[in-house]
Amino acid sequence: MPPLLLDDDRALPADPTTRGLAREIYRQVADLPLVCMHGHVDAAVLAADQPFPDPASLLVVPDHYLLRMLVSQGVELTDLGVPAAGGGPVETDPRRIWRTFCAGWHLFRGTPTRYWLEHELHEVFDVRTRPSAESADALYDHIAERLAKPDFRPRALFERFGIEVLATTDSPLSPLADHAALGADGWGERVVPTFRPDALLHVDGPEWRADVAQLAALTGVDTGSYAGFLDALRARRRAFVEAGALATDHGHFGTAIGPIDEPERIFDAARAGTVDAAAAEALAGHLLFEMARMSCEDGLVMQLHPGVLRNHDRAAHATYGPDKGFDIPVAAEFTRGLRPLLETFGRDRRFRLVVFTVDETVYARELAPLAGVYPAMRLGAPWWFLDTPDGMRRFREAVTDTAGFYNTTGFVDDTRAFVSIPARHDLARRIDAGHLARLVAEHRLDLDEALETAVDLAYRLPRSSYARP
Amino acid sequence: MPPLLLDDDRALPADPTTRGLAREIYRQVADLPLVCMHGHVDAAVLAADQPFPDPASLLVVPDHYLLRMLVSQGVELTDLGVPAAGGGPVETDPRRIWRTFCAGWHLFRGTPTRYWLEHELHEVFDVRTRPSAESADALYDHIAERLAKPDFRPRALFERFGIEVLATTDSPLSPLADHAALGADGWGERVVPTFRPDALLHVDGPEWRADVAQLAALTGVDTGSYAGFLDALRARRRAFVEAGALATDHGHFGTAIGPIDEPERIFDAARAGTVDAAAAEALAGHLLFEMARMSCEDGLVMQLHPGVLRNHDRAAHATYGPDKGFDIPVAAEFTRGLRPLLETFGRDRRFRLVVFTVDETVYARELAPLAGVYPAMRLGAPWWFLDTPDGMRRFREAVTDTAGFYNTTGFVDDTRAFVSIPARHDLARRIDAGHLARLVAEHRLDLDEALETAVDLAYRLPRSSYARP
Amino acid sequence: MPPLLLDDDRALPADPTTRGLAREIYRQVADLPLVCMHGHVDAAVLAADQPFPDPASLLVVPDHYLLRMLVSQGVELTDLGVPAAGGGPVETDPRRIWRTFCAGWHLFRGTPTRYWLEHELHEVFDVRTRPSAESADALYDHIAERLAKPDFRPRALFERFGIEVLATTDSPLSPLADHAALGADGWGERVVPTFRPDALLHVDGPEWRADVAQLAALTGVDTGSYAGFLDALRARRRAFVEAGALATDHGHFGTAIGPIDEPERIFDAARAGTVDAAAAEALAGHLLFEMARMSCEDGLVMQLHPGVLRNHDRAAHATYGPDKGFDIPVAAEFTRGLRPLLETFGRDRRFRLVVFTVDETVYARELAPLAGVYPAMRLGAPWWFLDTPDGMRRFREAVTDTAGFYNTTGFVDDTRAFVSIPARHDLARRIDAGHLARLVAEHRLDLDEALETAVDLAYRLPRSSYARP
Repeated sequence: MPPLLLDDDRALPADPTTRGLAREIYRQVADLPLVCMHGHVDAAVLAADQPFPDPASLLVVPDHYLLRMLVSQGVELTDLGVPAAGGGPVETDPRRIWRTFCAGWHLFRGTPTRYWLEHELHEVFDVRTRPSAESADALYDHIAERLAKPDFRPRALFERFGIEVLATTDSPLSPLADHAALGADGWGERVVPTFRPDALLHVDGPEWRADVAQLAALTGVDTGSYAGFLDALRARRRAFVEAGALATDHGHFGTAIGPIDEPERIFDAARAGTVDAAAAEALAGHLLFEMARMSCEDGLVMQLHPGVLRNHDRAAHATYGPDKGFDIPVAAEFTRGLRPLLETFGRDRRFRLVVFTVDETVYARELAPLAGVYPAMRLGAPWWFLDTPDGMRRFREAVTDTAGFYNTTGFVDDTRAFVSIPARHDLARRIDAGHLARLVAEHRLDLDEALETAVDLAYRLPRSSYARP
Repeated sequence: MPPLLLDDDRALPADPTTRGLAREIYRQVADLPLVCMHGHVDAAVLAADQPFPDPASLLVVPDHYLLRMLVSQGVELTDLGVPAAGGGPVETDPRRIWRTFCAGWHLFRGTPTRYWLEHELHEVFDVRTRPSAESADALYDHIAERLAKPDFRPRALFERFGIEVLATTDSPLSPLADHAALGADGWGERVVPTFRPDALLHVDGPEWRADVAQLAALTGVDTGSYAGFLDALRARRRAFVEAGALATDHGHFGTAIGPIDEPERIFDAARAGTVDAAAAEALAGHLLFEMARMSCEDGLVMQLHPGVLRNHDRAAHATYGPDKGFDIPVAAEFTRGLRPLLETFGRDRRFRLVVFTVDETVYARELAPLAGVYPAMRLGAPWWFLDTPDGMRRFREAVTDTAGFYNTTGFVDDTRAFVSIPARHDLARRIDAGHLARLVAEHRLDLDEALETAVDLAYRLPRSSYARP
Repeated sequence: MPPLLLDDDRALPADPTTRGLAREIYRQVADLPLVCMHGHVDAAVLAADQPFPDPASLLVVPDHYLLRMLVSQGVELTDLGVPAAGGGPVETDPRRIWRTFCAGWHLFRGTPTRYWLEHELHEVFDVRTRPSAESADALYDHIAERLAKPDFRPRALFERFGIEVLATTDSPLSPLADHAALGADGWGERVVPTFRPDALLHVDGPEWRADVAQLAALTGVDTGSYAGFLDALRARRRAFVEAGALATDHGHFGTAIGPIDEPERIFDAARAGTVDAAAAEALAGHLLFEMARMSCEDGLVMQLHPGVLRNHDRAAHATYGPDKGFDIPVAAEFTRGLRPLLETFGRDRRFRLVVFTVDETVYARELAPLAGVYPAMRLGAPWWFLDTPDGMRRFREAVTDTAGFYNTTGFVDDTRAFVSIPARHDLARRIDAGHLARLVAEHRLDLDEALETAVDLAYRLPRSSYARP
């Protein structure tokens, strides 16, 4: 069976001169602590600190990158352990799920999933055999044996990975009990929540009215009026700040983030259940504008992650639920869409805006020019489908000309796959090292500057971009 | 006069390590048979198997890539043998047309036309002198001499090129007589038709009513009603299947492919000659949806080639006809446009959809994410203006991250220039070899995997993507 | 303090084979005269030929690339010598402005600003120390000393830079007095005006009515009617031609450049002050169409520079004025937008259209296909935020496939920073040399062809593209 190899020079440019420089630059950052300012790891996992159950439940079932690729080649989600809403057979044997995954290993050739998994298998689990139908059982046993050991519990891995801080993503209605438990164990500064109020800001969502009622209950603020609703949001933001939060996070916005006339009227219609989609979208843009205003007050960094059409296949969503791989990007527009927001807060020293996108056509045209002039704005790392070796390379080549390095946040990972975090940071450091090495090889940057910049991108900029402004 | 050289390492990456790997990978696929699943070679050429008349008629006059470049630099189409509708002088001496082309050889520097022509001249015609005003006559004589030989007749070249199967593109009203003749000669599985019903699906076209009448005559089905029209289409698809067809092909769709209410009403208006453009476009989207439904029944693979504004210069079209270089791409949208189609048929095991585009901004944003989850969908090769060395490289770099290699069809050529087919396949094999070599050089793929993947891209995937699902 | 180095091989590809070829190609063009067909240097500077006042006033204060980057990192425009409209403190000591700039030197890492400035400092001013807070004062003195010398006056630098011709950009209302003065000194063919009538063509601008009155006064033509307005424009174009102008230049167009019905009606509404924005935009598209018609008559090359939303932050504009870095690109569309123009004039031998863009998504999709067929059209060089090493490389890789080299203008600089002109040309020559070298290294072009093409791109094409057609 073929071996699983992890070359020291992986993901570095092939040209020998450039590779030599990249190696030197990478060495400078390889062992820096991991600053993880945006992620979807469940705080409960770290609060409870229980062993991970088995290889498939840890590495396969919760990973939508992996599910979507296997589905695209004809595997049923039920065969990967995802139950269907209407019932029916579902695979429950993790070993069989693992076999299905290993048999599809070739499908991942050339993908970041493959790259990350190789790193995880090799570095975290000491695997030295390439996954395949033939090797599946042996690998399963090998990994399962390790997962049973104390060294492979969540907090032990957190330490071993060198994570300095990990931000989670949390509902504004979360009581943040897991973060409180972590705080009581002295982990309060290592695992911090992030305020993600999407569901509360889109007033035509199916759960919105129930959520608003829960918001009132949680805060003791009457959310029956628009002003009260804002006060309750403000209260929840305060609770997040007290629990260590550094940032908020926001998905979809309609055509623009900006103030509208009479938000009260739409709010009341939503309360009455008579709001239409266009009005709800306008109010969502308005409420994001209010979020920016609150960020000026409480110092939470505002993150935007727009441009994804969630649950493209509505039947698949109804049957299998969200986050199964059916989210598809759409074109995004920022020059006009962010104009009211940036005109009002873009030069406010109390405000920090970090923008992500899955539409790379706006990198050079819109995002780099905006971040290259508005002091409040930073560009987040290439996101999701773009968080790849070539995606990161294209990002640096497209934005550095106009935004430089210092209007970007450096690397920000974004994953619910806890064990993949070191692989993701390591890859980003290698790609940035390769990019900087090319600039040095082409005499566009001196080596001492490249070495310093590499540390900025890997460590200092993620830290400073999410510090209170 | 400068020589015409064809280097063994052409189109492979310059870095020595990567080139060495690319050479090894390319050798694996260089001599594989050519699978040509989409093209515009006229079946009559192979049915009749007559000698090609002369160098200009074979290589210059029918090639719109070549015409457009010469036109862009001030050459008149009439000087290239294209008659004007209103009459007037037109060059009829193929030698003079050939001279005009050779004198403009420098215009093609850096273009794929130049690359293909060098391959054709060198490999098919043993030319060893670079085209120029000075060498034009000698080259003309050299090529003309070869064209007169039996070895240069269409079927002999077909064999020499190593073509395993060649799909043509045919009107649904075609009686497929040439395919029948080829079948009678034992060539039925080597030259297969493709069902291209665009003109019948766009009900505001100038010939639509006449075409519908002919459809009725050909099928013996009454096309006076919408249901009858569908039945007649179904009958023609059946005739194509019987003639060996593996696929349908479709150009423009409006904003979406999806069902509409009351298609009968629009159909009747079209029959009455009172349909407007918006209704016709809506019906075209609906009829494409019906084509997908029929594909589930008869197994024809559905190909989409959208996003081109045909005949941009309407006066040039009126004077010189279509396919003279005046077709210009426009932005395309797939995430929303394909949603109804994919929600209905995207997970249907009987359905296969192959999507091409000339708008590469959707590769990473829309097409790779869609193909990377819907089992019915595959990405076709970079099309038309993107079927170039750098275009193919950008395609692989943009889509592999999310779609992998196995949600693409591998190489699919698309040309009416019969003699260019081997050059096009050879170039694609070199570019894919270079891409795979880079992954190996950067330790992102093992060499044995790259070798296997190269064969998949050159041969197995085109075969399996167009096999009945 | 670290040295400032300027490597002979800067901006050439790192791969040794490719670099060797690039070096040979670059040598062929390194010393060719500079043809500067589009710029914003003030003719008065060359007419007066006075010494430049100080390093900050020359290199920092007027450079919006530089201002915007410092602003993005929290520097106030007033600290860079830009006064605020309402008054208040503003830095007036050029040495302190220079210090602020030098202290932010690291912000420019990886940007073209940094690349150009290194070239200017090293080659024009013999600086050998890297800018920094520590070196700022010494550099200031070093440069100031040189600026006082006769060799550093504008005309002396013009000669030293090897500029053959420099086009300025001028209001149609300019009396062209500076150009007349230069003409009287024998510099008439070296410094030529460009006709930029944007303000007159957008009839809802705040100054439009005053400008039209001035146009009447200047030409002696009654501009009270639409026909008279056109006549007056025609007269000003004639005056520009007589002053040596070779081209016109135009910014924003709405959705299309094309004729409308009843332009007189909108013109009259504008005269009456009752025009709305949509009508004004329609008329602007119509007037650009008229400009094309006049170009057929008077031979002025028509340049388009669309796709920028000026003064994104309206408050910053009100306070600090235009050209301070707050112009942001938006998506552009050309296939449909240029259709009426190209259908009418695109094959007219008297017409030449040069198109620039800051939206590179249209390079391969729209611009290269259009320029690759319409004889009147040429693609300008990568503009503004795209006038960078990687931007120029991406341009060549995206457009050459379809437009070749000979449907581009070669390098066209676009700057108000006079001293940066040689750096910009030198960089473009290096990038084109690198691109051509890659084609040679990949055996897609012969070396003799690459050498000839390099000269075309650097010198012959800018000359011929702006010659009277």
